[in-house]
Amino acid sequence: MTQNVYDNPEFFEGYSQLGRSVEGLDGAAEWASIRALLPNLKGKRVVDLGCGFGWFCRFAKDEGAASVLGFDVSENMLARARATSDPAIRYERADLEVLELPETSFDLVYSSLAFHYLKDLDGLLARVHATLVPGGQLVFSIEHPIYMAPVHPGWSKDPDGRATWPVNGYLDEGARTTDWLAKGVVKQHRTIGTLLNMLIRLGFTLQHVEEWGPSQEQVAAHPEWAEERERPMFLLVSARK
Amino acid sequence: MTQNVYDNPEFFEGYSQLGRSVEGLDGAAEWASIRALLPNLKGKRVVDLGCGFGWFCRFAKDEGAASVLGFDVSENMLARARATSDPAIRYERADLEVLELPETSFDLVYSSLAFHYLKDLDGLLARVHATLVPGGQLVFSIEHPIYMAPVHPGWSKDPDGRATWPVNGYLDEGARTTDWLAKGVVKQHRTIGTLLNMLIRLGFTLQHVEEWGPSQEQVAAHPEWAEERERPMFLLVSARK
Repeated sequence: MTQNVYDNPEFFEGYSQLGRSVEGLDGAAEWASIRALLPNLKGKRVVDLGCGFGWFCRFAKDEGAASVLGFDVSENMLARARATSDPAIRYERADLEVLELPETSFDLVYSSLAFHYLKDLDGLLARVHATLVPGGQLVFSIEHPIYMAPVHPGWSKDPDGRATWPVNGYLDEGARTTDWLAKGVVKQHRTIGTLLNMLIRLGFTLQHVEEWGPSQEQVAAHPEWAEERERPMFLLVSARK
Repeated sequence: MTQNVYDNPEFFEGYSQLGRSVEGLDGAAEWASIRALLPNLKGKRVVDLGCGFGWFCRFAKDEGAASVLGFDVSENMLARARATSDPAIRYERADLEVLELPETSFDLVYSSLAFHYLKDLDGLLARVHATLVPGGQLVFSIEHPIYMAPVHPGWSKDPDGRATWPVNGYLDEGARTTDWLAKGVVKQHRTIGTLLNMLIRLGFTLQHVEEWGPSQEQVAAHPEWAEERERPMFLLVSARK
């Protein structure tokens, strides 16, 4: 089973205070870029893999989705999601490593920053492909491999004093353990090539690949984000069955 | 016009001594990975954009290609290519920024480490798409943006003494000037996302994306290449019309 770090009290306490937890989707700097990849949700059957507090599920319902199903491994997250939820949204506890999905049943599979926790992403993506209707869409974000690869992730300075990200280990895929909100958070590093070839091999057609960092406009509004343009933080992908 | 660094005598002298110049395709460490992306060339109409000394053109002819056309901007390179060439291969001088290609005329467009010199890559790729027959294939290598992005490209050490590549400027696309074989070589940095979305928008279907570094087997044979696995050096792409 995937490490369930969200039910670690220290992690959950820290996570609950992030902008994306308090303010919802608009508190996530990458949300506008993800939203631009989404289809019109009216009448769509939507599943969210790693739904957390349910912000995206509620958004999808508000946009007119016919049905919304959110899965998460964390009891803490699901309890919070259910507390504020529309009864038309269904939340279920599941480990994405082994989650079974009904065949040819969804128009959109969405996932935000969950796939990098999975060891057997290939297995999940095969089940995602099978659960989508023909023409259905997968839209997801994942931590960018540049961000995740280094043995010692953290800013240093180049000879001009400019913030620099110390990339190494990029081609050595596998577990990366970092201390973020709690000690010993385990994520799975994969190259962009590995991820995209996995999707292609499973039968997806790639529609959009975005190495996300804040836009110049966002940096103007939040000058403290400037160094986040030095290397991408997230990878956003849209693919069609 | 693109900077024609290959006709700079100092650059050409240095380039002529590289393994890939002396030994041909097998002298390029990434060749086996590129070759794996190629279709069976028998009977195919092939064009090589940035053909250099003509090693790939001769390979394609030897593999049974029906016709082979090589373009390069460098008179020096073309003179060397023509000196050893099969008369069935045609070499022409061309600036890829403005090269016109006949419509629906080729089965394979190949390019090795040339596209990163182009300012208007979008324009060239539109002409490549138009020149391919339906089902035709584009296979190319390009310097990896991780390799190209930094203001100060060059190895440093992390706290454990492990080789580290100083990524910054990744999201700021545009010219990068470095001293490699000669001073002031200008290349154009683009993110992987920008490159792939350009191909998708032009109507290509992505087939394979590989962030190339030497394999563990290659490092065993050439221990001095070990640090090249810390970050990818090249990006290899196969796309179909």
